[in-house]
Amino acid sequence: MSKKNAFYAQSGGVTAVINASACGVIETARQHSDKIGKVYAGLNGIVGALREELIDVSQESTETIAALRHTPSGAFGSCRYKLKSLEQNRAEYERLIEVFKAHDIGYFFYNGGGDSADTCLKISQLSEKMGYPIQAIHIPKTVDNDLPFTDNCPGFGSVAKYVAVSTKEAALDVASMCATSTKVFILEVMGRHAGWIAAAGALAQEQEGDAPHIILLPEVAFDKEKFLAKVQQTVADNGYCVIVASEGAQYEDGTFLADAGSVDAFGHKQLGGVAPTLAKMVKNELGLKYHWALADYLQRAARHIASATDVEQAYAVGKAAVEAAIAGKNAIMPTIERNGSSAADYSWSIGEAPLSEVANVEKFMPEEFITADGFGITQAGRNYLEPLIQGEDYPPYKNGIPQYARLKKVLVGKKLEKGFDVL
Amino acid sequence: MSKKNAFYAQSGGVTAVINASACGVIETARQHSDKIGKVYAGLNGIVGALREELIDVSQESTETIAALRHTPSGAFGSCRYKLKSLEQNRAEYERLIEVFKAHDIGYFFYNGGGDSADTCLKISQLSEKMGYPIQAIHIPKTVDNDLPFTDNCPGFGSVAKYVAVSTKEAALDVASMCATSTKVFILEVMGRHAGWIAAAGALAQEQEGDAPHIILLPEVAFDKEKFLAKVQQTVADNGYCVIVASEGAQYEDGTFLADAGSVDAFGHKQLGGVAPTLAKMVKNELGLKYHWALADYLQRAARHIASATDVEQAYAVGKAAVEAAIAGKNAIMPTIERNGSSAADYSWSIGEAPLSEVANVEKFMPEEFITADGFGITQAGRNYLEPLIQGEDYPPYKNGIPQYARLKKVLVGKKLEKGFDVL
Repeated sequence: MSKKNAFYAQSGGVTAVINASACGVIETARQHSDKIGKVYAGLNGIVGALREELIDVSQESTETIAALRHTPSGAFGSCRYKLKSLEQNRAEYERLIEVFKAHDIGYFFYNGGGDSADTCLKISQLSEKMGYPIQAIHIPKTVDNDLPFTDNCPGFGSVAKYVAVSTKEAALDVASMCATSTKVFILEVMGRHAGWIAAAGALAQEQEGDAPHIILLPEVAFDKEKFLAKVQQTVADNGYCVIVASEGAQYEDGTFLADAGSVDAFGHKQLGGVAPTLAKMVKNELGLKYHWALADYLQRAARHIASATDVEQAYAVGKAAVEAAIAGKNAIMPTIERNGSSAADYSWSIGEAPLSEVANVEKFMPEEFITADGFGITQAGRNYLEPLIQGEDYPPYKNGIPQYARLKKVLVGKKLEKGFDVL
Repeated sequence: MSKKNAFYAQSGGVTAVINASACGVIETARQHSDKIGKVYAGLNGIVGALREELIDVSQESTETIAALRHTPSGAFGSCRYKLKSLEQNRAEYERLIEVFKAHDIGYFFYNGGGDSADTCLKISQLSEKMGYPIQAIHIPKTVDNDLPFTDNCPGFGSVAKYVAVSTKEAALDVASMCATSTKVFILEVMGRHAGWIAAAGALAQEQEGDAPHIILLPEVAFDKEKFLAKVQQTVADNGYCVIVASEGAQYEDGTFLADAGSVDAFGHKQLGGVAPTLAKMVKNELGLKYHWALADYLQRAARHIASATDVEQAYAVGKAAVEAAIAGKNAIMPTIERNGSSAADYSWSIGEAPLSEVANVEKFMPEEFITADGFGITQAGRNYLEPLIQGEDYPPYKNGIPQYARLKKVLVGKKLEKGFDVL
């Protein structure tokens, strides 16, 4: 095997631990400098490759690369840019392969979700056809936890921990104020299609009666009457009610609650989402005082409360990707395999899945994880979720603020004459 | 001095560290069992005293009381209940004093903000007149940091740290996505009248150009054109713009941005607040993609990322309150006194202020803390804020979740024949 350079890119919405995967890739590549030359990273993901904007990772110190392990977000820049199908825009794929060829890149590590797994597969296939074979390895990452084959996705465990901890804390707040003030609290969390993140709110429950009392998942059709009855009963029983709602919560006909709101006096669609829609119901129909929070980016960026298990797994899939490449593998994704049936006997190891089967498949919450009334998580669901938030992995602090890596991002000189229009 | 029982109550919006003050009160009282008999706590604050619902704190174990130090929210229950003026409802004050007399309570520790300082003062005065003198000590607590005399309020440092850390993390997220996605991010934080909490967002800045790029304070009249120009310029310069906005941000005429929104198609006032109002401006006038978060209770409940300085100070004012009572003091509030001019040489000690001067005075951000353009914090402001978020004080975890105190809340038998209508 001749020594080739490697290309690494971050794709799609970032997470608290995607940089830990980057750290795993780069540190492992550096340990194998006999096999892998330079590591180049795409400036702002695959867009950087199309534009031939390649960050020379060798310019970053050992300390900076090590600090990626505890740095949230995409340190090299990510992007929301889905390559079109080969039929629609073959030129994009050909451009990528030309850039890779120009920079002697033989390994393509793509760190993302379902779409990027698909891109990765196509790069592998087309490069072969074009006579410049590239080993393309996909590194799993999504807060949504919706990739198939892998037991869970790096990024999910940390957002799950954030949601569980935040739910627990906010619930204590509401409990202490409910005698005279707020009785209903709603936390809106991410998850447009799959309810994994909202489900993780259930981990705040340690005893019978603990919040959250209601979890709204996209997988369960929203029934307004049933919901309001449950809120009312919960307030009657406990004095307060805490709700964790997926942004993707929807009615039976597929209308999102977030869209079921209304237009304002100017005819503009009302901003906001599920939480204010629910809050309005609770106020108008039950007359109860409410508060709501919208965690938005705070939840997926919350490296300060990351799951140690998640950090380790994120690093491990990055490391495994490089090791697989060195072993000559192609068009695969390292996966996380679970051993044990609950947090008590949980352990994990790294497996792999062929990209041809991973690409464009979404994994939803299985029915057996959802309670019969649709508002909660079963013991099976808890057994699945609980191991993923185990352990704390605090970043270092200075002046009261976490110290996150700052990259130099030195770009490699361009070798191709032509640019490429993208975006 | 004869041995008397003590009464402790939590008042108003809770914080991440008000229970640390409770811990300081109870542990110190237990150390002085020769002077202080039992400690009773009001179930749901002063409402518990009016109803004669007193929690017998002696039923709680040493371990549980110690755990209060790392437990957010009001463990005994708090309330939003402002006693009317003496002229308007003398009966309430007389009832309190009757309850205290019935349970041989000679010390009243009231843990709250400006309103509760006022109540505390009146109890002290009226009890004297009624021939059953009670030593009333106010223990400062507000996330709003708006009490006079004390350099800062316990509760503020932790919300400040939460906002600074969250701003830093969310900003990294936006920075990594801005090439193809979100360009403007808005975090709405608490602070209806004073901008201290939003100002703390500035502590996320470690280098020139760091987020947040715009801070909106209630103290600075909102100018839409100037705001939009600043957003546009920031996006042009950095690729993205991060805004921390006080819920109390307002126009020159005093209209809150949160209220300046509109009614929906059904004529209901639009829910939400400052963040969606700003987001709509950014979208409609600049056409930029935005995201926003509403931290709500998450910010003041976030014990998992509390400031160690804040926790120590919260404990210290509780301890000092009991020591002051034992020393025979009355109608005072322990304060935090600052030494040093910045975080580098910061130290603090406990002082005291007479309640007659504390009650019902609000402290706003001084002009010299706000930059000339009104969108940022000066070095003087930073020097004030930075020491308050120093140090981390992590709670213990089990199964990935913080372990917070659970009280038994055993109520003392009632001694008065009559009940009292409250609420």
